[in-house]
Amino acid sequence: MNINRFLRSVADSGKLLLRGERRRFVGEAVSEIRVEQLCDDLLSSKGEALGTALACSVAEAFNAMNERERLDFFHLLAERYGASKDKVEQAIAHYQTNKTSANLHALHRCSEPPRQELFRRINMAPGGTQTLVHLREYLLPLLTDYPEFVAIETDLHHLMTSWFNRGFLRLERIDWHTPAFILEKLITYEAVHEMSGWEDLRRRLADDRRCFAFFHPAMEHEPLIFVEVALCQGLAESVQKILSAEVDPGLQAQADTAIFYSISDCQAGLKGISFGNFLIKQVVMELQQELPNLQHFATLSPIPGFCRWLHAQIEANKLSEQQLRAIDGFDQPIQEACQSRDSAEACAVLMPLCAEYLYRAKRGSKPLDPVSRFHLRNGASIGQLNWNGDTSAKGMRQSAGIMVNYTYNLGLVEERHEDYVNDNLVMVEKDFYKYLAPESNACLKS
Amino acid sequence: MNINRFLRSVADSGKLLLRGERRRFVGEAVSEIRVEQLCDDLLSSKGEALGTALACSVAEAFNAMNERERLDFFHLLAERYGASKDKVEQAIAHYQTNKTSANLHALHRCSEPPRQELFRRINMAPGGTQTLVHLREYLLPLLTDYPEFVAIETDLHHLMTSWFNRGFLRLERIDWHTPAFILEKLITYEAVHEMSGWEDLRRRLADDRRCFAFFHPAMEHEPLIFVEVALCQGLAESVQKILSAEVDPGLQAQADTAIFYSISDCQAGLKGISFGNFLIKQVVMELQQELPNLQHFATLSPIPGFCRWLHAQIEANKLSEQQLRAIDGFDQPIQEACQSRDSAEACAVLMPLCAEYLYRAKRGSKPLDPVSRFHLRNGASIGQLNWNGDTSAKGMRQSAGIMVNYTYNLGLVEERHEDYVNDNLVMVEKDFYKYLAPESNACLKS
Amino acid sequence: MNINRFLRSVADSGKLLLRGERRRFVGEAVSEIRVEQLCDDLLSSKGEALGTALACSVAEAFNAMNERERLDFFHLLAERYGASKDKVEQAIAHYQTNKTSANLHALHRCSEPPRQELFRRINMAPGGTQTLVHLREYLLPLLTDYPEFVAIETDLHHLMTSWFNRGFLRLERIDWHTPAFILEKLITYEAVHEMSGWEDLRRRLADDRRCFAFFHPAMEHEPLIFVEVALCQGLAESVQKILSAEVDPGLQAQADTAIFYSISDCQAGLKGISFGNFLIKQVVMELQQELPNLQHFATLSPIPGFCRWLHAQIEANKLSEQQLRAIDGFDQPIQEACQSRDSAEACAVLMPLCAEYLYRAKRGSKPLDPVSRFHLRNGASIGQLNWNGDTSAKGMRQSAGIMVNYTYNLGLVEERHEDYVNDNLVMVEKDFYKYLAPESNACLKS
Amino acid sequence: MNINRFLRSVADSGKLLLRGERRRFVGEAVSEIRVEQLCDDLLSSKGEALGTALACSVAEAFNAMNERERLDFFHLLAERYGASKDKVEQAIAHYQTNKTSANLHALHRCSEPPRQELFRRINMAPGGTQTLVHLREYLLPLLTDYPEFVAIETDLHHLMTSWFNRGFLRLERIDWHTPAFILEKLITYEAVHEMSGWEDLRRRLADDRRCFAFFHPAMEHEPLIFVEVALCQGLAESVQKILSAEVDPGLQAQADTAIFYSISDCQAGLKGISFGNFLIKQVVMELQQELPNLQHFATLSPIPGFCRWLHAQIEANKLSEQQLRAIDGFDQPIQEACQSRDSAEACAVLMPLCAEYLYRAKRGSKPLDPVSRFHLRNGASIGQLNWNGDTSAKGMRQSAGIMVNYTYNLGLVEERHEDYVNDNLVMVEKDFYKYLAPESNACLKS
Repeated sequence: MNINRFLRSVADSGKLLLRGERRRFVGEAVSEIRVEQLCDDLLSSKGEALGTALACSVAEAFNAMNERERLDFFHLLAERYGASKDKVEQAIAHYQTNKTSANLHALHRCSEPPRQELFRRINMAPGGTQTLVHLREYLLPLLTDYPEFVAIETDLHHLMTSWFNRGFLRLERIDWHTPAFILEKLITYEAVHEMSGWEDLRRRLADDRRCFAFFHPAMEHEPLIFVEVALCQGLAESVQKILSAEVDPGLQAQADTAIFYSISDCQAGLKGISFGNFLIKQVVMELQQELPNLQHFATLSPIPGFCRWLHAQIEANKLSEQQLRAIDGFDQPIQEACQSRDSAEACAVLMPLCAEYLYRAKRGSKPLDPVSRFHLRNGASIGQLNWNGDTSAKGMRQSAGIMVNYTYNLGLVEERHEDYVNDNLVMVEKDFYKYLAPESNACLKS
Repeated sequence: MNINRFLRSVADSGKLLLRGERRRFVGEAVSEIRVEQLCDDLLSSKGEALGTALACSVAEAFNAMNERERLDFFHLLAERYGASKDKVEQAIAHYQTNKTSANLHALHRCSEPPRQELFRRINMAPGGTQTLVHLREYLLPLLTDYPEFVAIETDLHHLMTSWFNRGFLRLERIDWHTPAFILEKLITYEAVHEMSGWEDLRRRLADDRRCFAFFHPAMEHEPLIFVEVALCQGLAESVQKILSAEVDPGLQAQADTAIFYSISDCQAGLKGISFGNFLIKQVVMELQQELPNLQHFATLSPIPGFCRWLHAQIEANKLSEQQLRAIDGFDQPIQEACQSRDSAEACAVLMPLCAEYLYRAKRGSKPLDPVSRFHLRNGASIGQLNWNGDTSAKGMRQSAGIMVNYTYNLGLVEERHEDYVNDNLVMVEKDFYKYLAPESNACLKS
Repeated sequence: MNINRFLRSVADSGKLLLRGERRRFVGEAVSEIRVEQLCDDLLSSKGEALGTALACSVAEAFNAMNERERLDFFHLLAERYGASKDKVEQAIAHYQTNKTSANLHALHRCSEPPRQELFRRINMAPGGTQTLVHLREYLLPLLTDYPEFVAIETDLHHLMTSWFNRGFLRLERIDWHTPAFILEKLITYEAVHEMSGWEDLRRRLADDRRCFAFFHPAMEHEPLIFVEVALCQGLAESVQKILSAEVDPGLQAQADTAIFYSISDCQAGLKGISFGNFLIKQVVMELQQELPNLQHFATLSPIPGFCRWLHAQIEANKLSEQQLRAIDGFDQPIQEACQSRDSAEACAVLMPLCAEYLYRAKRGSKPLDPVSRFHLRNGASIGQLNWNGDTSAKGMRQSAGIMVNYTYNLGLVEERHEDYVNDNLVMVEKDFYKYLAPESNACLKS
Repeated sequence: MNINRFLRSVADSGKLLLRGERRRFVGEAVSEIRVEQLCDDLLSSKGEALGTALACSVAEAFNAMNERERLDFFHLLAERYGASKDKVEQAIAHYQTNKTSANLHALHRCSEPPRQELFRRINMAPGGTQTLVHLREYLLPLLTDYPEFVAIETDLHHLMTSWFNRGFLRLERIDWHTPAFILEKLITYEAVHEMSGWEDLRRRLADDRRCFAFFHPAMEHEPLIFVEVALCQGLAESVQKILSAEVDPGLQAQADTAIFYSISDCQAGLKGISFGNFLIKQVVMELQQELPNLQHFATLSPIPGFCRWLHAQIEANKLSEQQLRAIDGFDQPIQEACQSRDSAEACAVLMPLCAEYLYRAKRGSKPLDPVSRFHLRNGASIGQLNWNGDTSAKGMRQSAGIMVNYTYNLGLVEERHEDYVNDNLVMVEKDFYKYLAPESNACLKS
């Protein structure tokens, strides 16, 4: 019997106790009052069966809420389960009278919002972790409109960073030998280059491809993140070619390059709890061990912010007439646009602009492009730019079809990571460098 | 490749960076200064390779310390890595000026001793959890002499309660099919009834016995706690009989009773992080499933505090002359004592006294005996008293050889647990009740 | 490294030897002469690397043959690798001169066709078992036209019965957690009620269904046979209802009946090597253990020979005018036939005829219906007849849509099996018995 | 539920049938008559439950026999279950009348001793394979005194060669993580260099050692054969040094040589069914993969026949006076012998004689030494001779303490195997060659 079945049976005993002694649940609809009572009971319960049962009940209640009820519940968390200002006042007074470390500890404890303990107790129930991930998924989009919920998010983020610490992550190879119920989720979760169904998935798991995912023991049937890899001879320049290529099993022995062409986070509720970093590096090590002929590891990545930035440059009147003419309609899907422009000319204008964007456009001291920030932070460098790298409608709109390879050199990755994090250094490969106009001669008007 | 090998390789890259750039480690002896520097670096490091490397180095440094160095290190943790009183002062001022939840959060954060973050970071390194368990093992015995270390202990206890939460525990059956390196540890860790070697162990793992242990993913080769069970017809009355009985494989089918005759915590550094509770209940469920003929589940438990309490009663002059004569030398090993007293008379006097001890002697509102507190808190009841239950020298000295069966009735265990925790109710079985003199007629002089 | 990778590497060394020393393979097309040479070498080889390499080469050669080449190869096996009549003559002479057990053994050995040894050696190569299963798959349909191949079949059947002995079979539960590459094969191999794709498969693997397959270590990725089970309340009467029912996960707890509604052999080359028998009984035991509420185990089976037999009866003028009128068009797909007859009347006539067929029509001393022979031999009894049990075109044509439940009562199954095998006894359930006219009053004219 | 539990339950049903219907077993002692009846029933049974029950009963009956009863049983097997001479006569007559392949097949079948079918049926029962291995273990030592049993042995050998074919063998690493019940067996089965207990075993499984065993699915808890390997820098010259060396975990990274210092067959009843060959080569491949720094693979082997051969040479007067003087007492345990001779002089005389023995002494066209035959047949070459390689009493008596390294070069091993098997070629390494006197100048008088 595994621990979850055991916990569930403890919870079941607890529910009998709840029913027998309190008669509070029978026939009641889910309502804030009831949830409030459940949460209070959960926070004050000493017995473990009751505690587990209450945690399950809170989780069930939350999962059954509609939008309106969830909003009420978040208000409850923000207000009622925030730290008590009276108690904090008292603790400050005590501490200032007598500055012992015990009094300081007391102040620390009573300034912690009780909802943290509430979350910890929910997390212990079977399925509790999953419930909290869902809770955060609902919470995140509300933060703009409800700034008072930010404190809840801060607490959840703090706890989840500890619960999902990398020591608990388990890397698993995903292939056609993987259980169907996991594969089915990949089809759903693929966020970068959509899968059309089982046949499409099967091609991405063939012998000339690799796929790996991270799992966590508290959500054992849910991938947290997965990466898709194509084995290649030389750098891959087009994601459409990767997706439509005939299977070539011989590549396992011959390939010298592994291309990471898709990385998808699976759990919206874990946004900001970073796994991708470890995933890529651990996959590089796995691949090196399995396929010793591999010498290059690179992504084939979208450049999601390029067109947005470029439009801003155009509006700021930074492009010349000639440039503008060459790139007219540059971000339209190909079939609509291709008639109206000379592709070679557009390429000659857009590639340096894209290099400019990747290398010089910043948000604070870090690159403006979010994908770029992610890989550079991991210790990658910027490599080759690829014209017509992604000719899908989405690819054209985001980046005029241009894609970029970020290069992972395992021997340098830690050093580059430190350089980037501490000193904002961005490394580029030779293939990229050629597009960079000398500072004095930028492709944009200053 | 598993995550630990990966983390180790990340740590290795980090160490090269450390060596290459800082040259701080070469040829230096372990010293407080160095450790202080390492801890500062660890707390301030942003890069993950460096962070993991530093965490490893702190762990290694700690593991290499001698007693003197450890003491210095604990002082460092208590003082330097306690919360900064200046910053707390400032945060209080801010908060009192403007009582926002952001300012309260800031106060909460800066009142947390930085050593908590230090411990969290060490915990992420490969082997880090184990190191912190050792650290606490060294720390616990020092608390009496160094009350300033209590705050460190409070922090560790808080963190470990969360890290070792029951959702992560894995129950495993231990038998002769278990890997030898685990079995070897059972021989070392058995704390109640010592094992003399592999042959003794083998008997305890035979077909008429069961043994189960809890494991945790962060210390995968270390049992946390284990319990030994004997299958019996009726209640077992003597631990010596259990340990020396011939193997009877037929008991698997015929036994109606499972006797938990030994529970051993394995990790001194996890003292106070309770697992025994879950262990017993989960084992009861496992056994019910495997052996549906089992109807009774009980311990055969020592009564460690009985003789100590009885000596106190004697000194307080609570026993009659006649009682004293009957029990003269009662706590001596049998071979030395048996000549000097009439066993039947001693039994007649000692058994009611022992029942009195178990049922009426209290520490606060809970029983005085620690083993009793443990089982009652779990939801057990007090069952039969067994004369000559443990005739080893230790058994005679602790409890004049008397042992007691605590009874686990899975259908009642959660209710009893709640009654005990909330209302201090102690349930006793009929077999025990007969020894209890009516309140008005206690076996002690008042 | 598993043994197959090792054997493959041994085979590879052997191939280098073959190439280096003999130069026989380079540039040659697959041809009988070459295969003959390979087989001769394989039979005479003493070294194991060479032997394994040769076995692989024979297997590869066979797998590359076209129809014509296979026919030549079967002739080769029948003639060249049959027993040598000269040697047999000699061995008989020796034995008759001196009737020692050594001489008898020699006669036994030399009367064994050398192809048996050839098959044994091929069987040892990686993939060898699979190759021989394919070989037999090609061979079986040729036996009518080429009676000289029967001796090859006899040898293969003899060897396969021993290789696929039940001690090596591994029962596995198939569900949505099963690797995709296995599931894909179920879609292909389903022989009774066709699956339309992944969605259809998924429904058959939902929580109110069970599916089990047998695997063999020498063909680890190939199911040998699988059975599909529906959990039900009471006997299932219609296969279309089973296939189209909404998923009802609650059935796991409530169902009292398990219906085996589809059993598919997966390997045409293993025809006549019986697994279904063990599969059903072992699945019954698995289900009893998992779902103790199940009390009835029955099939919902086709009656493949009913219409064929009934046509023969009609032609032999055994049916009355009235019967004939009632069943006019009885074996047409429903949409075509339903207008032309009164269903209740057809039912009243056809059900007793079908019972007659199942109970009294024989081939030798055993039932004429092959599915009936299979289940009765396993120890089942004949249960309820179901009108409109399978209204697919195939179901209408085979048996006018009638299906039958065979009942497996594990407590009686072995006894019934012995009674059936030894004394031709056929057990029927009460529900079936009612359709059986008394012998003197059969529904057919005599 | 695994297949064995299922088979056992089938056997149990069968036993109930046996008891209920035949009442033959109650109260009867094991006796030849009963076993004969059981075997007859088993051979003639058609039903599978009865068959499995009967097979179990035969196995149980055999396992309960005393020496006398076993002898009777072997006579029964040899006579009653040999081929029927009458039937053979008839089949010969049929065949000679009409030489069809069906008649030849009939002759083949009836010349097969029925005990083969008996053994096959016993083999299908749970535990049946193990029983037959025991049966052969008892049988083998009787062959000299009872030549009429040779035919039984021939049949068993034939069947076991097929049942234990290498495709079914599973290689497993044995270390301190291996279940205790397996380790316990290694202590018992170690045949070359005895183990004194758990501590000795533990040393042999430390990080600078490797141990591997073969297992078979029909005897899953019994190792068939195991090999012990020491990681070394350069060739190991002394087995005592290997056994007593301090553990050096660093050797895993640094060692360039793997020394196979002990190979033990575990099952006396499988004598002559060769596994050692595959074991060594597969272990070499495993080690190459795990420890890429390893460059040399060699044994440190006893030379069991040297002293026996040398005594024969002495008696045949082939040694000179001087040689005899130098080696006086050469095969005595060191402490007794060392006084009486000059070790350097003895070495100078004995080493060339030993080389002579290994290289030139033959049995037919193959080497006289059995260990040498084994390794040369595997494709090894003869390497370095080691003076004082095994100074145990056994080592001194067998080979005057000399040991030899056989070298496995995986690139050459298959070629050498073929050369040895086909052309009797024996390869020697340079280190060995130097001891070989030129043919014309042998160290023995001709």
